[in-house]
Amino acid sequence: MAANNWGRWGDDDERGALNLLTPDVVKAAASSITKGKVYSLGIPIQGHGVPLMDYRGTPMRLTLQDSTDDGIYEMYGCHKGTGAHEDVLVMASHTTSHMDALVHVYGDYKHYNGVGHDTMHALGGAQKLGIDKVQGFAARAVLLDMVKYFDEDNWVTLGRNITGADLQGAADQQGVEVRAGDVVLVRTGYLQFWWQNAPNPTPFEQAGIGLDAARWLAAKDIVAVGCDNAAVEVIPFDENDFLAVHKVLLVDHGIYMLEFLNLADPAADETYEGVLTVAPLKVTGATGSPINPIFIG
Amino acid sequence: MAANNWGRWGDDDERGALNLLTPDVVKAAASSITKGKVYSLGIPIQGHGVPLMDYRGTPMRLTLQDSTDDGIYEMYGCHKGTGAHEDVLVMASHTTSHMDALVHVYGDYKHYNGVGHDTMHALGGAQKLGIDKVQGFAARAVLLDMVKYFDEDNWVTLGRNITGADLQGAADQQGVEVRAGDVVLVRTGYLQFWWQNAPNPTPFEQAGIGLDAARWLAAKDIVAVGCDNAAVEVIPFDENDFLAVHKVLLVDHGIYMLEFLNLADPAADETYEGVLTVAPLKVTGATGSPINPIFIG
Amino acid sequence: MAANNWGRWGDDDERGALNLLTPDVVKAAASSITKGKVYSLGIPIQGHGVPLMDYRGTPMRLTLQDSTDDGIYEMYGCHKGTGAHEDVLVMASHTTSHMDALVHVYGDYKHYNGVGHDTMHALGGAQKLGIDKVQGFAARAVLLDMVKYFDEDNWVTLGRNITGADLQGAADQQGVEVRAGDVVLVRTGYLQFWWQNAPNPTPFEQAGIGLDAARWLAAKDIVAVGCDNAAVEVIPFDENDFLAVHKVLLVDHGIYMLEFLNLADPAADETYEGVLTVAPLKVTGATGSPINPIFIG
Amino acid sequence: MAANNWGRWGDDDERGALNLLTPDVVKAAASSITKGKVYSLGIPIQGHGVPLMDYRGTPMRLTLQDSTDDGIYEMYGCHKGTGAHEDVLVMASHTTSHMDALVHVYGDYKHYNGVGHDTMHALGGAQKLGIDKVQGFAARAVLLDMVKYFDEDNWVTLGRNITGADLQGAADQQGVEVRAGDVVLVRTGYLQFWWQNAPNPTPFEQAGIGLDAARWLAAKDIVAVGCDNAAVEVIPFDENDFLAVHKVLLVDHGIYMLEFLNLADPAADETYEGVLTVAPLKVTGATGSPINPIFIG
Repeated sequence: MAANNWGRWGDDDERGALNLLTPDVVKAAASSITKGKVYSLGIPIQGHGVPLMDYRGTPMRLTLQDSTDDGIYEMYGCHKGTGAHEDVLVMASHTTSHMDALVHVYGDYKHYNGVGHDTMHALGGAQKLGIDKVQGFAARAVLLDMVKYFDEDNWVTLGRNITGADLQGAADQQGVEVRAGDVVLVRTGYLQFWWQNAPNPTPFEQAGIGLDAARWLAAKDIVAVGCDNAAVEVIPFDENDFLAVHKVLLVDHGIYMLEFLNLADPAADETYEGVLTVAPLKVTGATGSPINPIFIG
Repeated sequence: MAANNWGRWGDDDERGALNLLTPDVVKAAASSITKGKVYSLGIPIQGHGVPLMDYRGTPMRLTLQDSTDDGIYEMYGCHKGTGAHEDVLVMASHTTSHMDALVHVYGDYKHYNGVGHDTMHALGGAQKLGIDKVQGFAARAVLLDMVKYFDEDNWVTLGRNITGADLQGAADQQGVEVRAGDVVLVRTGYLQFWWQNAPNPTPFEQAGIGLDAARWLAAKDIVAVGCDNAAVEVIPFDENDFLAVHKVLLVDHGIYMLEFLNLADPAADETYEGVLTVAPLKVTGATGSPINPIFIG
Repeated sequence: MAANNWGRWGDDDERGALNLLTPDVVKAAASSITKGKVYSLGIPIQGHGVPLMDYRGTPMRLTLQDSTDDGIYEMYGCHKGTGAHEDVLVMASHTTSHMDALVHVYGDYKHYNGVGHDTMHALGGAQKLGIDKVQGFAARAVLLDMVKYFDEDNWVTLGRNITGADLQGAADQQGVEVRAGDVVLVRTGYLQFWWQNAPNPTPFEQAGIGLDAARWLAAKDIVAVGCDNAAVEVIPFDENDFLAVHKVLLVDHGIYMLEFLNLADPAADETYEGVLTVAPLKVTGATGSPINPIFIG
Repeated sequence: MAANNWGRWGDDDERGALNLLTPDVVKAAASSITKGKVYSLGIPIQGHGVPLMDYRGTPMRLTLQDSTDDGIYEMYGCHKGTGAHEDVLVMASHTTSHMDALVHVYGDYKHYNGVGHDTMHALGGAQKLGIDKVQGFAARAVLLDMVKYFDEDNWVTLGRNITGADLQGAADQQGVEVRAGDVVLVRTGYLQFWWQNAPNPTPFEQAGIGLDAARWLAAKDIVAVGCDNAAVEVIPFDENDFLAVHKVLLVDHGIYMLEFLNLADPAADETYEGVLTVAPLKVTGATGSPINPIFIG
């Protein structure tokens, strides 16, 4: 494995591992659809009952137009009894199920491909590596059910550091192979833990991948990793290094991270392979986006 | 064709034509992926340079956290030079490329399946038929390039009422078939018109489908129709009836509408068939969602 | 006392008791400034550490422009090292210290002066009685310190129903007189209770005025009543009638209500009279506004 | 005149010229109320029909709760026909009529009193000199009607640089004196120009004070200057130095700036003296606030 992917797709590259998704790779991925079952992996966006972080504010859906506005379209030929409902959304780009843009995290003051951390401007937004560079993608996805692998009842013990050997073990047990250009979905059961214990304060700890697994995934040349916890990575952070796994995956390798995906349904169905489409909102200059990945098994 | 789909999937159904997407239909759709080319159909979300409607406000990306916050994570073992960028989004649910929930439009004070227009509450949101009921879906999609069919240079003449015969003609010319369970993508070139003429005020007129085409599509038993204009339907409205086509598709038949999709790239490639995934944000009780559909040809 | 003030200032009146504030009344009020001490009665607007109601969302201050945007004004003759900081605010109109517009509450489907409750439109806002009709005002204000009157240590017992006789008793003890055209500021100590007990969940109960005091105040022909609790009125509501006091003051008499004002400082100084200015944001069609009243004793 | 006010009120001072407002000064100011006329100087906050700057977004009033939510308070003893209307506000802190905090502008990377420009954090907000330090104030105010002084019909010629001699000339003509601790309100008629010419694009030019007048005002030891234009200062900027006047007043002297105040009504009444109260929203860490100053003549 190269120490990192900087320069691998050109010095000006802003898409990182998405470069692996050539038409041939996508076409091959299509053959992993065998059941025709479709899973929506996003969790609800609402002000309560889902894990939220205080500093990101409460997501709000505010009504823009409702039946009290009856009559405003008369001049456009609106018949009595016809009308429209609309709303406005206010939410952090990293609310509930979301995707990190490559501009999200930096280490040693650098983002992926050596882009300086000052590429993010308050008013101007990300000058490079923003979520708009992702466009959206489709890839083969492999789900690794670590709850099952560790033979846990509902969730992996909070704080457990999942290793590369663990991921390989789960893949072997499930009879699936992780290939270059894949998205790897790692199920820890964290959301099930959260829902069972909310609204009592949950501890900061979560099971997740550590540095060893991050390097294992990078060596596999994957495109993205998705997880059902807050940050993909184990907390407390591996080596007590804040965002250690983000720095290996996002910063060093341009491998994307998808967080708070609900993986319980495909796991229950033992749907371990399929096509995953990820469609971030194309907000110019944003650092991430709420997402609702579609997994077709 | 039945007069409508009310009751067809049960009196309490809230998903409408999405019921057509059985695993068998989805599995069959997968075979329409032949090139492995992936198109992101959403247009940028930003405050200028894209068609916006004043009453919906300006979409805003506001920085939540940037490098000026350096140091706030020291207590979590954050190394010097490591940090994160985040933002907050403020946007209408029907901003730029978006999907209408079944609760979006009503006629005769009724939504799809006879749900009263009072199901939408300002604070409570949609009690029924909200965008959260969609979950997200994958379907076979057929792109009908009406710009090519009408032999126009760049866009269909503003205000032209596209008929069912026009759609059938385009399908025939392109050698594709519209099937039950499909999404039909209708290209009018409106976005290309808008970008060529902005920021000068554009007229209210747009080419789009009329009542005849709406009934033709409903008879085909499709799941959704997507278009590159503001409302799918022709403006001025057919029969001067405000939202006439919405009432046939969304209200009567539970057929979803996807607006402001950029269809220029697949049209240029003559990619007329494929799998489309649509992943609205799962905002509880919302009337629609910005989307970025992924079209895999 | 008239049963209500409907029609008193004309059938189309939208300002209610503010009509009492003639130049002569304001000029006379100026003589109540004797110390030159200025109190800002608003409490901080922030996401934590102040009483917030979940359904109103978390108030957010989001940075619009900071030093990371350095250089964007060069074209306007901006010298190196010169720049500007700005933000965007997202908050409920009834966040922390706020003023209710006459359109805020209705009873028997009517607002003040018989205006129907359907005057409020989701998109269009208040067609009548909105906060923009207030403009802002200056009046003589009298502070009644009920904590002192009831000889409590820090706050009036939660849930206590303060009567007209209590208000008169406090005025007599303090040697102040309530006159027509006054604002009456009623201190219950609720904010001090809240700050001492937060962030533990506080009970719903609060001391406040009941129907008897509301009628007493209306008979005095005051312009507004301000309080340091959430709703001016006692909770549980008097006669178990939701918003009973709002209906007497706001609906029947067009007397304004100012909530969550911090009255501790003037009370500590025994500053019981002065001029109060109230300056709601002039948001067209809004139902209220955050305020920061200035009390000059 | 000292070169600046840094250190004058202590090295840690964050309130600048507001320190001049001692009780004696405020008490003396009260005697300037002679008519009892009250003027609300804020202009409407709405999405159109008022001068807005694109990068600040459109101010939005969004309905939080309306009559479609009928019934949600039944459990609290809510009678049939009783209810409440509420909204949420989204607006820039420098929207329409507003006050700049001392943290708003910096020159040579320094704010007032030598505070570094890095005191503003994206997430954390202003660590020093935020609008919350203002609290709100009352002061004597003098209105200088430059439209009348220059004998213009409706507004001062766009781009005119108003000097200290001009301000003194207007004061003399009006028979008023500018004293230490005053707020000086400078009327240019810009808002009247804007309303007469909107919605046609207005030129960037505006009449306003230049460096000479800024130094004249600083020498008078005033507390704040208010104006009816976008930035108090003349545009194009004096000496082609971006925010030149802000740097003299706000940065060097801690003198506050109030922008987009409508001064037409008191000017029409020839109300040239009075008490002004300014009550910014006490948003912790904000760089400014919309305001609605109350001028009592």
